[in-house]
Amino acid sequence: MKQSRMLIPTQKQDPTGAEALSHRMLLRAGYIQQVSAGTYAYLPLAYRVLEKIERIIKRAMDDSGACEMLVPEIIPAQFWQDSGRYDTYGDELFKLKNRHDTEFILGPTHEETFTELIKSSVKSYKKLPLNLYQIQSKFRDEDRPRYGLLRSREFLMLDSYSFSANEADLDQIYKEMRGAFEAIFNQIGLSYRGIIGDSGSMGGSDSMEFSAPAAVGEDTIVYSNDSEYAANLEMATNMFVPQKSHAEAQPLELVDTSDVKTIDQVTEFFDVHPDQVVKSLLYLADEQPVIVLTRGDQVANEAKLKHVLGADTLELATPAQAAELLDVQPGAVGPFDLSAETRVIADEYVQPMVNAIVGANQTGKHYQGFNPTRDLPDLEYADVRTVKEGDISPDGSGELQFTKGIEIGHIFKLGTRYSKVLGADILDENGRQQPIIMGCYGIGVSRLLSAVAEQQADENGLVWPTAIAPFDVHVIPTNVKKEEQAELATQITTSLEEAGFEVLVDDRKERAGVKFADSDLIGVPIRVTIGKKADEGIVEVKIRKTGETVETKVDDLQNTIKILAKEI
Amino acid sequence: MKQSRMLIPTQKQDPTGAEALSHRMLLRAGYIQQVSAGTYAYLPLAYRVLEKIERIIKRAMDDSGACEMLVPEIIPAQFWQDSGRYDTYGDELFKLKNRHDTEFILGPTHEETFTELIKSSVKSYKKLPLNLYQIQSKFRDEDRPRYGLLRSREFLMLDSYSFSANEADLDQIYKEMRGAFEAIFNQIGLSYRGIIGDSGSMGGSDSMEFSAPAAVGEDTIVYSNDSEYAANLEMATNMFVPQKSHAEAQPLELVDTSDVKTIDQVTEFFDVHPDQVVKSLLYLADEQPVIVLTRGDQVANEAKLKHVLGADTLELATPAQAAELLDVQPGAVGPFDLSAETRVIADEYVQPMVNAIVGANQTGKHYQGFNPTRDLPDLEYADVRTVKEGDISPDGSGELQFTKGIEIGHIFKLGTRYSKVLGADILDENGRQQPIIMGCYGIGVSRLLSAVAEQQADENGLVWPTAIAPFDVHVIPTNVKKEEQAELATQITTSLEEAGFEVLVDDRKERAGVKFADSDLIGVPIRVTIGKKADEGIVEVKIRKTGETVETKVDDLQNTIKILAKEI
Repeated sequence: MKQSRMLIPTQKQDPTGAEALSHRMLLRAGYIQQVSAGTYAYLPLAYRVLEKIERIIKRAMDDSGACEMLVPEIIPAQFWQDSGRYDTYGDELFKLKNRHDTEFILGPTHEETFTELIKSSVKSYKKLPLNLYQIQSKFRDEDRPRYGLLRSREFLMLDSYSFSANEADLDQIYKEMRGAFEAIFNQIGLSYRGIIGDSGSMGGSDSMEFSAPAAVGEDTIVYSNDSEYAANLEMATNMFVPQKSHAEAQPLELVDTSDVKTIDQVTEFFDVHPDQVVKSLLYLADEQPVIVLTRGDQVANEAKLKHVLGADTLELATPAQAAELLDVQPGAVGPFDLSAETRVIADEYVQPMVNAIVGANQTGKHYQGFNPTRDLPDLEYADVRTVKEGDISPDGSGELQFTKGIEIGHIFKLGTRYSKVLGADILDENGRQQPIIMGCYGIGVSRLLSAVAEQQADENGLVWPTAIAPFDVHVIPTNVKKEEQAELATQITTSLEEAGFEVLVDDRKERAGVKFADSDLIGVPIRVTIGKKADEGIVEVKIRKTGETVETKVDDLQNTIKILAKEI
Repeated sequence: MKQSRMLIPTQKQDPTGAEALSHRMLLRAGYIQQVSAGTYAYLPLAYRVLEKIERIIKRAMDDSGACEMLVPEIIPAQFWQDSGRYDTYGDELFKLKNRHDTEFILGPTHEETFTELIKSSVKSYKKLPLNLYQIQSKFRDEDRPRYGLLRSREFLMLDSYSFSANEADLDQIYKEMRGAFEAIFNQIGLSYRGIIGDSGSMGGSDSMEFSAPAAVGEDTIVYSNDSEYAANLEMATNMFVPQKSHAEAQPLELVDTSDVKTIDQVTEFFDVHPDQVVKSLLYLADEQPVIVLTRGDQVANEAKLKHVLGADTLELATPAQAAELLDVQPGAVGPFDLSAETRVIADEYVQPMVNAIVGANQTGKHYQGFNPTRDLPDLEYADVRTVKEGDISPDGSGELQFTKGIEIGHIFKLGTRYSKVLGADILDENGRQQPIIMGCYGIGVSRLLSAVAEQQADENGLVWPTAIAPFDVHVIPTNVKKEEQAELATQITTSLEEAGFEVLVDDRKERAGVKFADSDLIGVPIRVTIGKKADEGIVEVKIRKTGETVETKVDDLQNTIKILAKEI
């Protein structure tokens, strides 16, 4: 492909207002162009990358037995009113009316549409399971679009919906989809983590988020440096490794601590390390008092607490509430002398503590010599702490590390959430009417392009993995006015194309410096420079990612590139 | 592909409300499903056809040097306000606002968006020409959607936009696009006609419409039965073949005809054939009187008249206007004794008439013995007649025939229509600022699917040409409960797939009759039936289009299919 026939408006300078590396480089390299706030044109280079991503996705989806189709992007508002999402989705929904005043929305996702289609076409378990997918523009009226394609108002998404008559089939499809998604991200050449979802890590395995580590990510991901383990910070766990103390147990002793309240004050007062202090916090869980104990060097995790307590709401008690419920100030709360309605939950790490300091539940008093198993033998233990970098991964393999991440995919077991409210029933094997069991599976296609750019670009421009690069080879005659260079460029391009490579040839009458800078911006994996040694039949091959260069005879070029293409 | 894993909701009965054959059969065969009035889901079979159509389109576009990209479907209303189309497009535009009250439209076409993109990224003739295309959902708020995909509110369309610095480049791209479109329609296996557009047939060659003959078409197309010639009825011409008369010229003689007004009355009164009468009609062209003469057996064509006269408006004069302007009744109008401001245009066929009858421009009087070249030597002649079936094609090859047609594509030379109003200028070779010269080229992708169905379906269902059939072969074991049939089906499917065929295998536990009916509806070109002779290794091969069947040994099946696939 001749570069002169493509629209590639590269920019020498960083565009203003583009914070994220991917956004900046996609603009500078002429891949995308803003049309309105939060909407972008995918110019020819970006489109080629998107097409390759889509091809990888489609192959993996088809191989897993899913079937591609396409539903309208405008959705009758009624569908979403029936499912209850018309209101809950709120301002992020683009709404419109047709000329006859019928209300529509622009689809951000299509659970309702697919459910309605299946409802009217499938009546029996015999026609199931089905897994149906599409790749299509989706819409979300973001309040503040940012980071280019990462948070935009119109974006490309794969969405797949599975329909089955029983849980076993859902489990099977969910497993297939997880495998397909992993295969897709691996093939694209993206670094990612599969994160077991909120409900998943605590209960069954209802959802999984796929996240690509990147500086501009909006979530904190916790992952093991030596295993597959990954989780969002609020759900992450670590391996409970009790530290054994061989100290002799001291008697429990009430100490007058007057104004001592915070952990820092306690450690100073008793001259101990925070891991010898038990921190007591009073929460209101669904308006019932709960005292939560953690080791002084650890932090309570409210998401985990809510799960352990099965609570819908959880709030730290105000001083007034503490005074009213326990007759103490918050700093003096402790797990002693409590009324029957006050529940106590201790983190696992509290259990092996020996001779700890703990609030006495009396204003101005602490206990020292607290030995939980001896002094409070009925204490309830659970994992209610927030993990820290360096903690041991819950699978025992490696240490936990933190990173920011971009959500690139999500798989959900929906169960009967949509089929029930929309009345999508089938007759089961026993002739009984049952709601269809559903799953949904999504990948942010245009997000993937940005995520890869975010992970792999450098300050000179984009760097594409071979699987999704817009071209395999960038051929650059440094001076097309020199006939032998122009001819050699044509000859090389033709022979590489015949060998199956996709070649971009810079046929522009630009200076060599401009061409090299543009080439770095565009980020094709392999560059072939036709320069002064063209008349000797020698060209230079450069690897965009590493910057390595090698001179090669034109006759050897194809082989050199074949070898390099495999290595990159 | 197993039929049980695809969503193919076939229907035994014709759905209500579907008039067009394609609409009826696409619904019955489980290809499409209505989501709301004028919007349809493309179910997996339809999606496969669409994908093949898109692949054919993309290959032809890429081969012609066009570059694929993608712009947002939501367009800032401002773009269309600037171009003037926001108002002229009227109610067919879907309009919406985002949460910050910015106005958008859903794009029915994207001249403005592409022009704006080029405006901000291309400043010099050196970066041109460019031809950029996309395939994407488009939106039109049709008042009354009908005929399924043929007139829908959301549809798939290819739209390509060319940008050049001079007319020669536009001419070249226009020519390439015409070639590409013809290649596309030919490859798809569609019968079509290229129709030179309105302005084209009269002036340059500014636009061409591609139309697929079909009963439900909304336009009347005139075409030659022996050449490429085709035109819309209002623009069609025929070859002017003057009939020579050897009769001796009679003198011009005024005849009292009292109440005789219509052609029928005139022919009866004078006992002549209509081709011996000159019909005179009084028009107001931009409010100026014009008398139009045609032979009595021919009909004036107002579109052609407007072009010949260069008039914006053209209306037949009312009796009152005729009386006021010429002081005669309309039935007595004639090309005589006229004021200087009354122009006379005669159709070419009037010129060779000998001894004709014509209105005398006096109430109750006609002339006989009218010989135009003798009696009105300064008469102005032009082609202002409406063609008839049986006329000779203007290229002299074949006779004209009429048919209804579906518009499937259109190519336009836009010139500076958009670049001027939107300010998309470049510096030309002489450093002068010039508006960019544009062209646009569109194909209705989802319409193509319907057009093919419309042309090729029969009363048993769809019949797909091999190039776009959802599968190449439909394998039908009549009874999957019989182990040898199920096994043979798997074996045949695998071996055909390995040979490169796309195979749909009906693995459902349905009766043979149901399977055959569904197979006819679905319309895969070749069917392989595995029935009672399965244990002898014999299967039946059937051509969907012709209904021909042949029995073949399983060992010969692949060869048989290869031969048939080429023949169909």
